[in-house]
Amino acid sequence: MKPQHPNADVRMQGFAVRSTVEEALSWLASALPQFKNLPTEATPLADAARRVLASDVTSPVNVPQFVRAMMDGFALQAAATHGASTYNRLELRIVGDCFPGQPFAGSVGAGEAVRVMTGAPLPGGADAVLPVESTECEGQQLWALGEVPPGKHVGTVGEDIALGELLLCSGRVLRPQDVGVLSSIGRAEVPVVRPPRVSILLTGNELLPAGTEPTGCHIADANGPMLVALAERDGGVVVRQQIVPDDRSAILAALREEADVVLVSGGSSVGQEDHVPTLLAEHGELAIHGIAMRPSSPMGLGRLDDRLVFLLPGNPVSCLCGYDFFAGRAIRALAGRSLAWPYRQRTAVLTRKLVSTVGRVDYVRVKLARDQCEPLAISGSSILSSTTRADGFVIVPADSEGHPAAAEVDVFLYDESIGA
Amino acid sequence: MKPQHPNADVRMQGFAVRSTVEEALSWLASALPQFKNLPTEATPLADAARRVLASDVTSPVNVPQFVRAMMDGFALQAAATHGASTYNRLELRIVGDCFPGQPFAGSVGAGEAVRVMTGAPLPGGADAVLPVESTECEGQQLWALGEVPPGKHVGTVGEDIALGELLLCSGRVLRPQDVGVLSSIGRAEVPVVRPPRVSILLTGNELLPAGTEPTGCHIADANGPMLVALAERDGGVVVRQQIVPDDRSAILAALREEADVVLVSGGSSVGQEDHVPTLLAEHGELAIHGIAMRPSSPMGLGRLDDRLVFLLPGNPVSCLCGYDFFAGRAIRALAGRSLAWPYRQRTAVLTRKLVSTVGRVDYVRVKLARDQCEPLAISGSSILSSTTRADGFVIVPADSEGHPAAAEVDVFLYDESIGA
Repeated sequence: MKPQHPNADVRMQGFAVRSTVEEALSWLASALPQFKNLPTEATPLADAARRVLASDVTSPVNVPQFVRAMMDGFALQAAATHGASTYNRLELRIVGDCFPGQPFAGSVGAGEAVRVMTGAPLPGGADAVLPVESTECEGQQLWALGEVPPGKHVGTVGEDIALGELLLCSGRVLRPQDVGVLSSIGRAEVPVVRPPRVSILLTGNELLPAGTEPTGCHIADANGPMLVALAERDGGVVVRQQIVPDDRSAILAALREEADVVLVSGGSSVGQEDHVPTLLAEHGELAIHGIAMRPSSPMGLGRLDDRLVFLLPGNPVSCLCGYDFFAGRAIRALAGRSLAWPYRQRTAVLTRKLVSTVGRVDYVRVKLARDQCEPLAISGSSILSSTTRADGFVIVPADSEGHPAAAEVDVFLYDESIGA
Repeated sequence: MKPQHPNADVRMQGFAVRSTVEEALSWLASALPQFKNLPTEATPLADAARRVLASDVTSPVNVPQFVRAMMDGFALQAAATHGASTYNRLELRIVGDCFPGQPFAGSVGAGEAVRVMTGAPLPGGADAVLPVESTECEGQQLWALGEVPPGKHVGTVGEDIALGELLLCSGRVLRPQDVGVLSSIGRAEVPVVRPPRVSILLTGNELLPAGTEPTGCHIADANGPMLVALAERDGGVVVRQQIVPDDRSAILAALREEADVVLVSGGSSVGQEDHVPTLLAEHGELAIHGIAMRPSSPMGLGRLDDRLVFLLPGNPVSCLCGYDFFAGRAIRALAGRSLAWPYRQRTAVLTRKLVSTVGRVDYVRVKLARDQCEPLAISGSSILSSTTRADGFVIVPADSEGHPAAAEVDVFLYDESIGA
């Protein structure tokens, strides 16, 4: 049996005051810029998509570096087609072929033409491409059936990207096509912001490691694997996931390991075994503790040296909800992602009244059936399987008493494939 | 210089007939089910999120397996609180503490109470938890200031997950919370569908490997790294990315390497160096060749044995557009993802008229400024940097002549953080 905490009775009395969700978000918004100076690292192009560019990229080359044919057809001197039509076929002589990557060795004279493929370098002497559709040919003889002006169907040097052009700015989240553009200017790697390192601490002497069959009065850790999946979804790199004994010095040592964001599951409330809030208050900053929301009310936000710390309730639904409201937002911000909820949204009609308490934000799991959504009648934040049975959730803001039956509400979808 | 293809002139005449986008999508929809039988593999829980579950999961255990306290407070016999109030404090004796994972060794008698933390196993003899808020205590003396009925604040065996319960069905795309639930029933790994293996073939003798500085009439491959990023975004695993010489036997050998989906960039049209369509027609099925859309018109869809094959134009904008319309859709389907475009959407007002041709689907890159969107005046599908300068795109359907200025249109956003 553990020794009793001297102030156990006082500390078990619940939260005296709860912050609002707005206050917690506003503290987070003010704290985040101080954590945004993550170091730069080089990444090979193959891993660059979705990473945050760490410096401006200017092109050292023209793309393309050569004048090229933009149609399949014949490179020639435009003047040679002057007056050509189907009624006035003008004859030229085919003097060669020119393929992409294979320049024509000679030069195109006045009555000459070189067969070109799209993307091939335009042969010297030519100034236009007559599309194959406007020609007829037989052996080395070509007839122009139409006119082209100089420059027609010819791509110029640097028309995609000009030498010296500012292509992408620092802070840009790289898209697949940006990676293509970087490749086209010859970059094999790019400087990117290191993703936020996330450390996951799981407290609770009842916990068995994830993937262990529960036995006796012990339960298998569910929050660890769930938080790993959430943090990776949001662009973080999980550097650690460990079960820490309910012991002040063990928890403090774990809190101090290298990370940019620390997620602590369990021990976040005001009970006698809830060491984390006091440790954070003593050694760092416990900025927010207790939030007017359901579930996730017994959670906290703060920092320890250069780490953002999120105290998440051990109850798994609270853990999920608290993560998504605050921790996920922070990880996404540090990873350069959108701050918006990472769920597709749709509207649906409530099948029954949804009651909420003014002054508290509610996170209500719902089940969808066509255009209708039904709030799941579950109060317990310990029932993780409710988030598996639910199709999504509805947020009821603090200033609302809820919604009447048949009201239209916004549903955030857990499963991106719903609605597809 | 390469030998000329015997039918070069005929084959350079352009597409005789183009399929509609609907026809191409409809062929894809009919073909996809035949490619959906991807084999099953086991994945550790840590990598299970977003994977497709390959068999039903039934729980082999109750979660929790024990009766537990759901509040911080005192476990006792409910009858002992009968009639208790702040005016009628009933005295009990504290006989111990009980923490999560640490059962109380004894049994709770009539006038006794055991201090419990949320999640602790309920001590024998007790049938309710009196919340700490309804008590006062001093040393081993406890006063009940309120009543609780039997069962109050007590969590029952299997209340989260019952033994034998069907938890998750085969085909489910696993969410972070599903991974948590699987962990809580003791699963260390789960059977999942192997993700689609994507092979990327880049044709074109003008191509230098990605990340090489362009030189002379050669260009650095941009489509390879872009397609890798796109395929991985959509849940595919890229097993190969190679530049293949413009040579029939080399291309055929590369087409036949192991893969579920083959993306071929370049050589997709009807020019004399466009070997891939004829190879596919001869050795497999070229179901669709030439589509009434802009860009990406010279593209094809088909199959070779047990591979879905997408012939994408070498022009990078066409490659991106053709990928997103057809190939990405197929990869997402095989990976169990949503078929919807993987871009956030918003509405915006056109700054100027957008002209389109009836009978052709247009993919128009646009730039956003607040609520307004401006079509980029770029015709060339060779200008990849246009997709970097654009904020997103608008799709103009085949039955539309376009939109007048000031019309409201749906914009698909390239960058998920726009609109956040």
